[in-house]
Amino acid sequence: MKIVVLGGDGFCGWPNSLHLSNAGHEITIVDNLSRRKIDVELEVESLTPIASIHTRLNTWKELTGKEINFFNFDIAKEYYHLLSFIKDLKPDVIVHFAEQRSAPYSSLSEQTKRYTVDNNLNATHNVLCAIADSGLDIHLVHLGSIGVYGYHTTEMEIPEGYLNIKVESRSGEQVNQEILYPPDTESIYHMTKAQDQLFFHYYNKNNGIRITDLHQGNVWGTHTEETKLDERLVNRFDYDGVYGTVLNRFIIQAAVGHPLTVYGSGEQTRAFIHIQDTTRCIELAINNPPPKDAKVQIFNQITQTHCVKDLAETLSKMVDGVKVSYVDNPRKHIEDKENEFFVAKKCFLSMGLKPIFLEEGLVSEIHEIAEKYQHRCDRSKILPPRWT
Amino acid sequence: MKIVVLGGDGFCGWPNSLHLSNAGHEITIVDNLSRRKIDVELEVESLTPIASIHTRLNTWKELTGKEINFFNFDIAKEYYHLLSFIKDLKPDVIVHFAEQRSAPYSSLSEQTKRYTVDNNLNATHNVLCAIADSGLDIHLVHLGSIGVYGYHTTEMEIPEGYLNIKVESRSGEQVNQEILYPPDTESIYHMTKAQDQLFFHYYNKNNGIRITDLHQGNVWGTHTEETKLDERLVNRFDYDGVYGTVLNRFIIQAAVGHPLTVYGSGEQTRAFIHIQDTTRCIELAINNPPPKDAKVQIFNQITQTHCVKDLAETLSKMVDGVKVSYVDNPRKHIEDKENEFFVAKKCFLSMGLKPIFLEEGLVSEIHEIAEKYQHRCDRSKILPPRWT
Repeated sequence: MKIVVLGGDGFCGWPNSLHLSNAGHEITIVDNLSRRKIDVELEVESLTPIASIHTRLNTWKELTGKEINFFNFDIAKEYYHLLSFIKDLKPDVIVHFAEQRSAPYSSLSEQTKRYTVDNNLNATHNVLCAIADSGLDIHLVHLGSIGVYGYHTTEMEIPEGYLNIKVESRSGEQVNQEILYPPDTESIYHMTKAQDQLFFHYYNKNNGIRITDLHQGNVWGTHTEETKLDERLVNRFDYDGVYGTVLNRFIIQAAVGHPLTVYGSGEQTRAFIHIQDTTRCIELAINNPPPKDAKVQIFNQITQTHCVKDLAETLSKMVDGVKVSYVDNPRKHIEDKENEFFVAKKCFLSMGLKPIFLEEGLVSEIHEIAEKYQHRCDRSKILPPRWT
Repeated sequence: MKIVVLGGDGFCGWPNSLHLSNAGHEITIVDNLSRRKIDVELEVESLTPIASIHTRLNTWKELTGKEINFFNFDIAKEYYHLLSFIKDLKPDVIVHFAEQRSAPYSSLSEQTKRYTVDNNLNATHNVLCAIADSGLDIHLVHLGSIGVYGYHTTEMEIPEGYLNIKVESRSGEQVNQEILYPPDTESIYHMTKAQDQLFFHYYNKNNGIRITDLHQGNVWGTHTEETKLDERLVNRFDYDGVYGTVLNRFIIQAAVGHPLTVYGSGEQTRAFIHIQDTTRCIELAINNPPPKDAKVQIFNQITQTHCVKDLAETLSKMVDGVKVSYVDNPRKHIEDKENEFFVAKKCFLSMGLKPIFLEEGLVSEIHEIAEKYQHRCDRSKILPPRWT
């Protein structure tokens, strides 16, 4: 298939582009390199030494003979560029990773709040508007977040997108109704993903666009089968307090002998997925599009849930001399102090996903990434900023 | 109170500014005159000869001695202007009308779709972000739309914002949960209002901003007690196929002897409110803010529901020789062919609102507006454009 990967230079976009290219698809990346520019702004670098996008693409061609095309433009700002690009290329699928994806970054300041809102909402809307305008039947696969529901102990298991409810009718009877499971977001970033859902609902209903929205958990891991072929293909590993996810921060802290910084009690439960499984899920989503005229298809893209404290304790047992340190929660005014997290995850398993579990992947992550590249770690960047 | 009216030169903003000024509040209007500029773009004019904003304000001062301040800037684009304005003025209340408010306009072309999304979402987010940034305790009163729910025959009465549902817990019990009544929008414009609700939810929860969101129906009528004091204070009357609401189009059609153009079967039911009642509702909302730490307060701002066909037939009986003409529905791919519309409207009635009903107001609307200004009507503008 002819596939466009929007945001194909980023942490998820890059390994997915390689994985889909390897599977025989014709891949075109669109990326404005915004994630690399935010590194400049935050004065941090990926722990892994990521190569430039052109070095990445040349290396891939050299190793596999496969060509990935690349265009650098801003889909949130350059609508007519995006539209003519889609009309010319006529892709079968557009995979949309092109959003600012850090919850802490989205809450750093009024600038990062407004950038996240403006960029994410206009990017998603421009893609939908351009697909509608092109008149082409393109399947849009969007990377959303399981965080649109907030992290709470719910009485029910959070379903995959839709919820059947009973409401009282005007005549007093109980009637059934299907709704989107209600969002309840805890960051500006997650809020934009919940707003994206309303774009999808409208453009699906009004313009018949086929859409798959993936509600992904925290992604951990660095290597995929493709990125580990050559160091010039290596994926990003963010360990800083802004872009580093909880597990990545623990891994680098363990490697450099920094105490593992748990926010608050650590009784918060989060959902996880390995980056390799992300690439498998995206491929499954592409191979299983919704039928024409079907509603938006929503899958939860997570494989495990863990409480943060347990993660820290597991790691501290794996690595000699590493302690756990409980620090003041920078998100305490909005995040539950503790929660369980019950989420349905049947769709991808039923399509054949065989998950990589933390228990098996963590050790190689520590040795192959954290210890190998620990000399690149700036310890002053590990602790989190306060949310506003 | 010190009140800012964002969008205070528009169809709702202007009479509300006068009404609140008359009630003794200190009013400052912020408006970038975008609505007047869209008239230029669409090559139409208000049926009523609206005066320039400075003529309006000077007239108001001349008649009442009351001064309304005015600032012309774009709240969606000029964040730092907005922020310093709020910090300097320290208003008690901000009333937010500053969104593109025509559903047909929002569906005319990719330009108007993207303008509506970009303008409405960034405007609302900038206001919330600036209130949070200012550190001031400002009550935000937002004009939303009852159209966020779509126009469908629902088994239940649509509540005022929140819905109690029963869901099945993990252990199989029925448990209660309160959610936002689920949106289901039928235009880009209404979609942005549904997305606004997610902004409100987040900023209320994260930053404690006190918010009242008003889900308003179709507004009809032109004059309020204040705008009829002098012709230079007259409010807009839009009769064209893009900005004219169904009732205004019927009224001008009746006055000029054009058949009343009903879209489709006319069995669509819509919710209505007179512009004078809008001003009373906004005043009631300002006088009844939610307590600190309360959730977003949502009121349905409608007084009557009517099916379109009945409106046309009522009018054709009032005016001799006027026929009803059923035309192809330009919105038929998304709008229900026919629907009833059951909506709760207790909140404002319980606060003392005494509605003006269509039956009593229509005749004066025909004589005082449509017949008086019919020489200004461009008949070529009455029919609707097709939605994309």
